[in-house]
Amino acid sequence: MRILFVNGPNLKLLGRRETGIYGRTSLAEIKKRVLQRARTLRVLVDFRQSNHEGDLVDLIGAAPGRYSAIVINPAAYTHTSVALRDAIAAVGLPTVEIHLSNIHARENFRRRSLTAPVCAGQICGFGPLSYLLGLEAAVSLAKSTGKRP
Amino acid sequence: MRILFVNGPNLKLLGRRETGIYGRTSLAEIKKRVLQRARTLRVLVDFRQSNHEGDLVDLIGAAPGRYSAIVINPAAYTHTSVALRDAIAAVGLPTVEIHLSNIHARENFRRRSLTAPVCAGQICGFGPLSYLLGLEAAVSLAKSTGKRP
Amino acid sequence: MRILFVNGPNLKLLGRRETGIYGRTSLAEIKKRVLQRARTLRVLVDFRQSNHEGDLVDLIGAAPGRYSAIVINPAAYTHTSVALRDAIAAVGLPTVEIHLSNIHARENFRRRSLTAPVCAGQICGFGPLSYLLGLEAAVSLAKSTGKRP
Amino acid sequence: MRILFVNGPNLKLLGRRETGIYGRTSLAEIKKRVLQRARTLRVLVDFRQSNHEGDLVDLIGAAPGRYSAIVINPAAYTHTSVALRDAIAAVGLPTVEIHLSNIHARENFRRRSLTAPVCAGQICGFGPLSYLLGLEAAVSLAKSTGKRP
Amino acid sequence: MRILFVNGPNLKLLGRRETGIYGRTSLAEIKKRVLQRARTLRVLVDFRQSNHEGDLVDLIGAAPGRYSAIVINPAAYTHTSVALRDAIAAVGLPTVEIHLSNIHARENFRRRSLTAPVCAGQICGFGPLSYLLGLEAAVSLAKSTGKRP
Amino acid sequence: MRILFVNGPNLKLLGRRETGIYGRTSLAEIKKRVLQRARTLRVLVDFRQSNHEGDLVDLIGAAPGRYSAIVINPAAYTHTSVALRDAIAAVGLPTVEIHLSNIHARENFRRRSLTAPVCAGQICGFGPLSYLLGLEAAVSLAKSTGKRP
Amino acid sequence: MRILFVNGPNLKLLGRRETGIYGRTSLAEIKKRVLQRARTLRVLVDFRQSNHEGDLVDLIGAAPGRYSAIVINPAAYTHTSVALRDAIAAVGLPTVEIHLSNIHARENFRRRSLTAPVCAGQICGFGPLSYLLGLEAAVSLAKSTGKRP
Amino acid sequence: MRILFVNGPNLKLLGRRETGIYGRTSLAEIKKRVLQRARTLRVLVDFRQSNHEGDLVDLIGAAPGRYSAIVINPAAYTHTSVALRDAIAAVGLPTVEIHLSNIHARENFRRRSLTAPVCAGQICGFGPLSYLLGLEAAVSLAKSTGKRP
Amino acid sequence: MRILFVNGPNLKLLGRRETGIYGRTSLAEIKKRVLQRARTLRVLVDFRQSNHEGDLVDLIGAAPGRYSAIVINPAAYTHTSVALRDAIAAVGLPTVEIHLSNIHARENFRRRSLTAPVCAGQICGFGPLSYLLGLEAAVSLAKSTGKRP
Amino acid sequence: MRILFVNGPNLKLLGRRETGIYGRTSLAEIKKRVLQRARTLRVLVDFRQSNHEGDLVDLIGAAPGRYSAIVINPAAYTHTSVALRDAIAAVGLPTVEIHLSNIHARENFRRRSLTAPVCAGQICGFGPLSYLLGLEAAVSLAKSTGKRP
Amino acid sequence: MRILFVNGPNLKLLGRRETGIYGRTSLAEIKKRVLQRARTLRVLVDFRQSNHEGDLVDLIGAAPGRYSAIVINPAAYTHTSVALRDAIAAVGLPTVEIHLSNIHARENFRRRSLTAPVCAGQICGFGPLSYLLGLEAAVSLAKSTGKRP
Amino acid sequence: MRILFVNGPNLKLLGRRETGIYGRTSLAEIKKRVLQRARTLRVLVDFRQSNHEGDLVDLIGAAPGRYSAIVINPAAYTHTSVALRDAIAAVGLPTVEIHLSNIHARENFRRRSLTAPVCAGQICGFGPLSYLLGLEAAVSLAKSTGKRP
Repeated sequence: MRILFVNGPNLKLLGRRETGIYGRTSLAEIKKRVLQRARTLRVLVDFRQSNHEGDLVDLIGAAPGRYSAIVINPAAYTHTSVALRDAIAAVGLPTVEIHLSNIHARENFRRRSLTAPVCAGQICGFGPLSYLLGLEAAVSLAKSTGKRP
Repeated sequence: MRILFVNGPNLKLLGRRETGIYGRTSLAEIKKRVLQRARTLRVLVDFRQSNHEGDLVDLIGAAPGRYSAIVINPAAYTHTSVALRDAIAAVGLPTVEIHLSNIHARENFRRRSLTAPVCAGQICGFGPLSYLLGLEAAVSLAKSTGKRP
Repeated sequence: MRILFVNGPNLKLLGRRETGIYGRTSLAEIKKRVLQRARTLRVLVDFRQSNHEGDLVDLIGAAPGRYSAIVINPAAYTHTSVALRDAIAAVGLPTVEIHLSNIHARENFRRRSLTAPVCAGQICGFGPLSYLLGLEAAVSLAKSTGKRP
Repeated sequence: MRILFVNGPNLKLLGRRETGIYGRTSLAEIKKRVLQRARTLRVLVDFRQSNHEGDLVDLIGAAPGRYSAIVINPAAYTHTSVALRDAIAAVGLPTVEIHLSNIHARENFRRRSLTAPVCAGQICGFGPLSYLLGLEAAVSLAKSTGKRP
Repeated sequence: MRILFVNGPNLKLLGRRETGIYGRTSLAEIKKRVLQRARTLRVLVDFRQSNHEGDLVDLIGAAPGRYSAIVINPAAYTHTSVALRDAIAAVGLPTVEIHLSNIHARENFRRRSLTAPVCAGQICGFGPLSYLLGLEAAVSLAKSTGKRP
Repeated sequence: MRILFVNGPNLKLLGRRETGIYGRTSLAEIKKRVLQRARTLRVLVDFRQSNHEGDLVDLIGAAPGRYSAIVINPAAYTHTSVALRDAIAAVGLPTVEIHLSNIHARENFRRRSLTAPVCAGQICGFGPLSYLLGLEAAVSLAKSTGKRP
Repeated sequence: MRILFVNGPNLKLLGRRETGIYGRTSLAEIKKRVLQRARTLRVLVDFRQSNHEGDLVDLIGAAPGRYSAIVINPAAYTHTSVALRDAIAAVGLPTVEIHLSNIHARENFRRRSLTAPVCAGQICGFGPLSYLLGLEAAVSLAKSTGKRP
Repeated sequence: MRILFVNGPNLKLLGRRETGIYGRTSLAEIKKRVLQRARTLRVLVDFRQSNHEGDLVDLIGAAPGRYSAIVINPAAYTHTSVALRDAIAAVGLPTVEIHLSNIHARENFRRRSLTAPVCAGQICGFGPLSYLLGLEAAVSLAKSTGKRP
Repeated sequence: MRILFVNGPNLKLLGRRETGIYGRTSLAEIKKRVLQRARTLRVLVDFRQSNHEGDLVDLIGAAPGRYSAIVINPAAYTHTSVALRDAIAAVGLPTVEIHLSNIHARENFRRRSLTAPVCAGQICGFGPLSYLLGLEAAVSLAKSTGKRP
Repeated sequence: MRILFVNGPNLKLLGRRETGIYGRTSLAEIKKRVLQRARTLRVLVDFRQSNHEGDLVDLIGAAPGRYSAIVINPAAYTHTSVALRDAIAAVGLPTVEIHLSNIHARENFRRRSLTAPVCAGQICGFGPLSYLLGLEAAVSLAKSTGKRP
Repeated sequence: MRILFVNGPNLKLLGRRETGIYGRTSLAEIKKRVLQRARTLRVLVDFRQSNHEGDLVDLIGAAPGRYSAIVINPAAYTHTSVALRDAIAAVGLPTVEIHLSNIHARENFRRRSLTAPVCAGQICGFGPLSYLLGLEAAVSLAKSTGKRP
Repeated sequence: MRILFVNGPNLKLLGRRETGIYGRTSLAEIKKRVLQRARTLRVLVDFRQSNHEGDLVDLIGAAPGRYSAIVINPAAYTHTSVALRDAIAAVGLPTVEIHLSNIHARENFRRRSLTAPVCAGQICGFGPLSYLLGLEAAVSLAKSTGKRP
């Protein structure tokens, strides 16, 4: 079983900037923890990041056949990208939306997620732990071979 | 370490009604799985349900000193109860909001959570698995002794 | 056949207060008329009132198996209770929403009913007669054993 | 005592089209049931239908002196016709608004009724039974010779 | 010079109904006063009323070549008729919108006029005097042969 | 195969008025071009216009059995007529909504079409060509005997 | 009989600026025409202008006992001044709101008048003629000694 | 003279939690100060608190005949409870709404009070002093035996 | 200790106009009662009124160094003046907002106070008593030398 | 004459995914039909697709001088891309917006098109036929060498 | 060349109050810097401040003929004064709106500027430097003798 | 000192298209003027343009360490890009937002800037001069080594 992790814009700045909101852990460190946990769960993980909306749409569009499930942190595109939403809905793979920060406790425009309604579920607010919980959820969804558990 | 699970209105009907949305697992069955996982994590869990907003506020108000963290499925009160929000904010314990269904994929009024902004984070859409992920998050939050990881 | 009548908050003050809006008939008097009409229709009626949202949710949650249909005057909770809405939707019994006053001719916030969309229909504006029409509708719905006639 | 039944646009298509929403009973069949019930109640009924907003306004404007009460299913004009609202308000006869379907459970724009605030009350969601309940309410209102019971 | 007076729905009930809002003068009486004043101003007046939106659109569509200006009391259609608005804009005759009551002091939905933006101006709140002021304005507009004075 | 063309209010003024928005072609000229193209496509066309909402509802209500598809330019009623919407939905014939002007580039209230959601599709902005494209679409829809191609 | 004319901010620039919207007539010229018409009607007129909201409130507050009616062109304060509204409501003199331009055909924020609901009526769009019609209306209102004709 | 003090949800946590917003004084200490001041004013006071909306509605519904006036701090229910509003309106006793914090300076949803429109007035922002000012106002209202001073 | 009382537009008309809303006591009479109570509390009071927003801003801007606290009834400017809000925020003196009427029970636009969020608190609905309660609150705030008690 | 076809994000998944909404025809198959029809009309067509907003903006920005008209299916970017809108407006070529599905019959956020107001017109809801109608419209627009026919 | 600087309410408190938002420089100091820079640019500057909306309107109304351009910091009136907007639009001088703070980063109601749409442009967020940049822009606009560069 | 200039989508079309809004100066010409002024100020400037949101995010993300400040004209992305906003906030360099046109005087959706709240300030409406003023502001901000002057 292979899981695709998709990371949206600005996440490569993680750990260096706005640490009050996003914490001090870098994306590389998070990736390391995800791969470690993946080994425990005996699944493979591909871990990608891009600042380009089109790249993220490309990645998801090419996922069917290669991956059993997707874990996505769409970052800023959560709130603006109908294209990402359409991509997730189109490929129909079980998808878990994750966020480092609690998007419900921030600016008003961050409370609306365009992508969440086409994902299986959403996990937010737990920092790097959101990634590990997202992995666990994705593996469980992939095993039950359906979008809803 | 002791974790309080708080379940809101109508959750005792779980497994018998609207199984298309909420699945076929009863609350008793979910409780069993949560206690099982709690044993693995070597924590204690109290598991409560009430249809009364006031009971839920009482439970949370009495939690400090007894519990290290709270996992709450406020159900319908998610969207209408400022009292629950104020209770969670007042006691200041690390709190995880969970939902069985993906509230972002349902009626419009279910997308607004009054309680989420004062919780550490939110997990929704994974059925009974939401409870287990919530437990894992709560234990992690309690260990780092702070509301944000 | 047994029909459950559920009355929401403040209805026990009926007949003594704000008679300009709600009329001079007490809830006891309305109950008497409902029971009288029930005898004519050869059905049994249980007639309950509570100021507690949780009590009303309890009542409805316990209705399946005991009652063939529900007639509910949710009063103030019409406009604020997602919990009542979820309870009605969960038990799936044919339910008729009634109001003494014409809620469409009052304050703006009374025009939105959270419960009406999950009921079979709504009757409002006819004073105590709303209860008798509600009984007739509920009996008819129960006979056709479906939520929609 | 004579009661005017006013039926708005598209109602003559009843029973043949969109039977999932409006049921399989034709307007002619409904009329038959209304007349039958009217005989039981010893009142006379005139039963009209038009697709023209102006015709409906004409009918209502000419009602005073001829009818003791009005039962109206304004259909689509419920949501768009200030002219119908003004006509009902102007003639001041006790008026009952009825709908076959539960307008609160349909598209958002169907939840606003321009006519309901100037009627005595509203009955919706019970199919042809809405007409019979409406007749009963109208007769009761006409007897108490006032708009509010 | 010939001026067309167009009266919208329910205005033939004037003087008999809702006299608190619209006064006790009948439309016939108002017509008499308008014709009298027209003679003083040495202009001809045609005075029409219909409850049918389509009739009013027909009347206005046929006005060019016959009339120098239009005075219109669109009544309820003020707030709902894009068709009337389009008719007035299409024929391009100087048009004065009048109302008996002060529409700014009534229900919220009466404050929006769909027709006013395509008229030269609006006069409201002066009862039958609104008609005489409207005539005076229309004659003045027609003389200056332009829509704006 | 027979196609019904329905034209809404003010369209008989076409070519003489507001030529900046609607162009200089009269409705008669457009009809001529439509009939010409219909002959090429070997279908029959009935071409109607009315300023009366009720007439348009009548026309559509009587269409089943006589026509295979409808092309409608609802003009002003696009934005205000729930009755037209209900008529189109009720008869269930494949229906194409057309507009001469680009309604998305005009006043805000013209961007909302009440009828489009119950039509197969919408064509707007191409002047008389909108009619010819609408004919082509309607014929294609009728041939595939389904509302969606 | 004495009538107070109150002119709001920027009106002393009239005739020199934005002549496309407000015309080429100066306020002095308008005053001359108003006084002339006043002589014909055998009433006295005081004609004031100020750019200061407070001055306008002072003027109106001091009007009872000195004037029989007020004609006011509140200009920009129409849309922003609750103080003017309260002053007009407080003194209770018959008041006519006038505007040179058709405020319904301009920017959206000019369509809301805070003062119109407490005036007897509103006249707008007729240039300097608005002042003469306003005078005529005020005299008529003053004669019938009531705010509504 | 006897005054009823009603305290809403979470107020028993006062003084221990969120002292930045609500101050360090406990509800017991506030009660002491209120009783002290009541003795000075020679009135009796009953001081209640509940987290249950239904309890608060019960308390108010039972107040007529026992109390001359009510002082209520509805806390979170201020913003969500139509039931409390209806209870206050129903019993018709002079009622003063109080708040410790300045609700106008907090989250947006706290600025809307559902209960204030049916109270005589509102006092907010003065910490425990709000209770003493509320007592003074209630006594004054009760003496003038009317809801408005 | 010296307290500044600031009264906004139209308040000098008090007692003579709209006595149904504002009562029959004049501003002079209120001033007398305030000075009387001030003597009891052993503080000095300056009592000002102006219809000019700029005057009120001047008064507040000059207050630091002269006064220990401000009591302000901004009247109509409550709802429209960002300038007053900025003045109050700028000088940083403890400020109490008062209103004679219950602004929450009147027109919708009166429920929004631009000034309340920068005041310590608000007192409304108690007629002249609002002034005395405001004085008491201001003295208490000034003594604790901080904006929040 | 050369026409540019621009296809937005996710369209290369066409025919394999969400066939209920978008049909079973692939983009390659649609391209084939468009080229075929282009040959009949004796025009050249370039047919492009990209998931990248920037690519689409590049394509349009480079179009002047190379193409006579544009047919664009902006897909998800229809609703979110001001950049595409600005590009279309900037190059000033006659542009036709097309959609496979009827965007007016889907989610609310799909009803707003940011690009339509700067296109000549819009065609939606006819599946692959939308492309052929779009081609026909574009050729006609290019021939009349103006944006509006 | 002579430039008019207009400063709105509360700006004379600058440097003493809310230094966190507005900085520690007084208006006198800013004036000094502006005059200094003006000498370098060889232009004359008049520098005015008033708390009175009417004064600001007077100043602008009297500017034509005396000044070549205006630099205005409308402060609080930015968000509430249609009168200032009308004055700027009426005199037609090139006008630059400036703000010390970044109004886009403050309360929501400060993001709407009523005056900006009739100015040539807006500069905000740079503290006293905003004044110098405004001067530079105004001189440049005045030289090109047009409102837009 | 080195300043980064970032130019958003469509700006390379400048000077050739929509010259009524954006003027006749090309981006190359603007760059020349900026470099010229930079030499005078003795700072270095890098001048970039891209139509790709992701490229702009990349540029900003890589800026820390290389540049002392950023001047950005986000063009269309001003109104839609949360990703750009997050990038600017993340890198924390002093940033100046500039626009050629006065965005407050154009379509409604252009008045909301997602990026302005995280910039130091905004300059708009002065054509190419906006770039020079932006440079001056950026240099000043960089010198004071803080985001706010």
